[in-house]
Amino acid sequence: MKTINYPLKSSWTDLLKRPAINTNSLEKDVATILAGVKQNGDRSIKTYTCQFDKVEIGTTLVSKKEIEEAENLCTQKLKKAIQLAKKNIQKFHTSQKEKVKIIETTKGVSCWRRSVGIEKVGLYIPGGSAPLFSTILMLGVPAKLAGCKEVILCSPPNINGMLDPAILYAAKLVGVTKIFKIGGVQAIAAMAYGTDTVPQVYKIFGPGNQYVTCAKQLVNKNGTAIDMPAGPSELAILADGSCVPTYVAADLLSQAEHGEDSQVILVSDNQKTIKEVLNELKKQLAVLPRKSIAKKALQNSKAILVKSKSEAIELINQYAPEHLIVTCKNEDKIAMKIINAGSVFIGNYSCETAGDYASGTNHTLPTNGHAKAYSGISLDSFVKKITYQKISKKGINNIGPAIELMAEAEGLQGHKNAVTLRLNNK
Amino acid sequence: MKTINYPLKSSWTDLLKRPAINTNSLEKDVATILAGVKQNGDRSIKTYTCQFDKVEIGTTLVSKKEIEEAENLCTQKLKKAIQLAKKNIQKFHTSQKEKVKIIETTKGVSCWRRSVGIEKVGLYIPGGSAPLFSTILMLGVPAKLAGCKEVILCSPPNINGMLDPAILYAAKLVGVTKIFKIGGVQAIAAMAYGTDTVPQVYKIFGPGNQYVTCAKQLVNKNGTAIDMPAGPSELAILADGSCVPTYVAADLLSQAEHGEDSQVILVSDNQKTIKEVLNELKKQLAVLPRKSIAKKALQNSKAILVKSKSEAIELINQYAPEHLIVTCKNEDKIAMKIINAGSVFIGNYSCETAGDYASGTNHTLPTNGHAKAYSGISLDSFVKKITYQKISKKGINNIGPAIELMAEAEGLQGHKNAVTLRLNNK
Repeated sequence: MKTINYPLKSSWTDLLKRPAINTNSLEKDVATILAGVKQNGDRSIKTYTCQFDKVEIGTTLVSKKEIEEAENLCTQKLKKAIQLAKKNIQKFHTSQKEKVKIIETTKGVSCWRRSVGIEKVGLYIPGGSAPLFSTILMLGVPAKLAGCKEVILCSPPNINGMLDPAILYAAKLVGVTKIFKIGGVQAIAAMAYGTDTVPQVYKIFGPGNQYVTCAKQLVNKNGTAIDMPAGPSELAILADGSCVPTYVAADLLSQAEHGEDSQVILVSDNQKTIKEVLNELKKQLAVLPRKSIAKKALQNSKAILVKSKSEAIELINQYAPEHLIVTCKNEDKIAMKIINAGSVFIGNYSCETAGDYASGTNHTLPTNGHAKAYSGISLDSFVKKITYQKISKKGINNIGPAIELMAEAEGLQGHKNAVTLRLNNK
Repeated sequence: MKTINYPLKSSWTDLLKRPAINTNSLEKDVATILAGVKQNGDRSIKTYTCQFDKVEIGTTLVSKKEIEEAENLCTQKLKKAIQLAKKNIQKFHTSQKEKVKIIETTKGVSCWRRSVGIEKVGLYIPGGSAPLFSTILMLGVPAKLAGCKEVILCSPPNINGMLDPAILYAAKLVGVTKIFKIGGVQAIAAMAYGTDTVPQVYKIFGPGNQYVTCAKQLVNKNGTAIDMPAGPSELAILADGSCVPTYVAADLLSQAEHGEDSQVILVSDNQKTIKEVLNELKKQLAVLPRKSIAKKALQNSKAILVKSKSEAIELINQYAPEHLIVTCKNEDKIAMKIINAGSVFIGNYSCETAGDYASGTNHTLPTNGHAKAYSGISLDSFVKKITYQKISKKGINNIGPAIELMAEAEGLQGHKNAVTLRLNNK
């Protein structure tokens, strides 16, 4: 992890660059798989599963029996932990429900909006070294709260053609309606186009490698909604002399162990703090099981010494981190000056890990600077907000003449006529 | 307009197909212009403006003097009308503001979210036969309410190198910070990448032709957020014997006059209603100034006779119209059974034109079936919702052990360690 002392503002853009991701080179391969599944459905999925997951799957749909068995395979302790996380996530996301407010904008003109769950959604959960059941909670809980009727899940089978028991347990717990042993681009294709087995969905959620990311981009361009643009995970920490360096180092490593392309940024106005954190980092890194991954991620990472807290805030807002921990004097006030971040963690005890699993906030967040324009996943992500209006005779009399003028000025006589007829009450 | 009587459900998918839009063939041309502006900035914009708008522009930034003059060129009556529309749009969108609610998910664990305006946004307003100042209200009002600091606007200059006075007046009224005489793909490029003159923005809003749509898709794929996928405008009307056929016909035409690729769908369980509406349609069409456009749009359009109201609702939910007018018995109840639509207009006096201009709801809505997964523009579109959490020592003690278990089960020891250190309070 490189330390940069008092960088000039003119150098920030370069300094804060993310490791480049470019999916353009994959596009052709990904498009071929998408087209294959679109045309040949389940048959094509089987072929790709053989090719990429090295396993032949009879039925991709996970059976009731498999789900029941999975429940027995999970330890009681883990199930309790998952239940606690679910409860908190549910409580926080329930608070995001919006009441219908009928607004009379002009006498006789009532407008309101109503949130309606997206009927069919698909969740993608990557495979790999560990089962990401926490992401199932983060996506499945708001999906069910939103009232989505069909909530399907795709995840790649392991070499034995199975999904991890914790995946199946979490999926059942949140009320996923169908679980499929399908991974990669073929899973995205199945959900976007539908097959004989897999229902077509209107919006696809969930993380994935660069092939999955590219597939999501391509189906999005052709009409299927997706959660948000994806990118490697990242954390920024703003710390000063009041922080606990051991904690800060542990937080940086918790992010760095995610993947080799992860990035962590430590920002401080205190040189001593940076030194202490980096010392502690070395010690903790040495005993970390995922040391080799974290080490690579730390090569993309930086400790930045700035002149003041206000410079730190400015730099962080330019970086727009996915996660931000603020652990310094006046941390509450400083946190409110952040305008670009996915999720903010305030104080010594608010570690990112808490938000990753169980505090209640969502862990699917905008990376790669997208926090400048995107929000993380919330209940909003699983609903459409339909607007309504009801206008009385009096109402159209009140606003009709203004509308006639505007429609005419825009050269739209047909628009005007729809109002004129009502004003004349013909 | 073709009438289809009692179509079988199995034929609905074909029946409800939209006129196909395919921007793939434009992609190469659009990408060339984007790359040109990215590399050569303002110089490239000048060249493209000469080529496409047939005018040489000295300074693309509209001057204060031009804006003042525009204000004098608009009639007092039109200005008053625009002000009334602005007031209603502002009232409705203000009601969408969200209060910060601090939720204690577990004792000692507080989570909340805060809406923050996207710092820099760009509005695109197409040129063409008429000045679409109403769209400036629909985008500019929520942008300012959201607290966006930089709100720029691009619109193509006319042959005299000017923008319409109504465009400039509306832009000033809503508080647009900078107005540029730039149109087409080069405008999207300017806003996405920034030039010496045009500030780079984080999200681009607004309608446009298929080149603009394609440009928005491409910059979106590379990181700039956009409002929503675009497509030709459309209206469905559910009417029965209680409707006023003159009004229904006028509403269908108000949509049909938008463009040759517009589509209108009339759904009814009453054969007589359909006949009366179509008769009235013929009469009104004959005297419509934009008759030739509307005629073409009506070729894509259908009157569908169904067996019952519940079948009508099902069919409409499958179509997912941008606009839906419900004018029939029990219209309020029926409107609440709609799950896929952009905006719903209830009753005889709620014409689509009202929502297009001045009732208060937004007129930028999901077309092309996207209402299944997307909402129309609202205050939400101009903010990011940042989540926050503050956890006390007690809080981490309460949820920490569950987090440790989950992190371990996901194979992420570094995540676990960040919690363990805090539980041990080392």
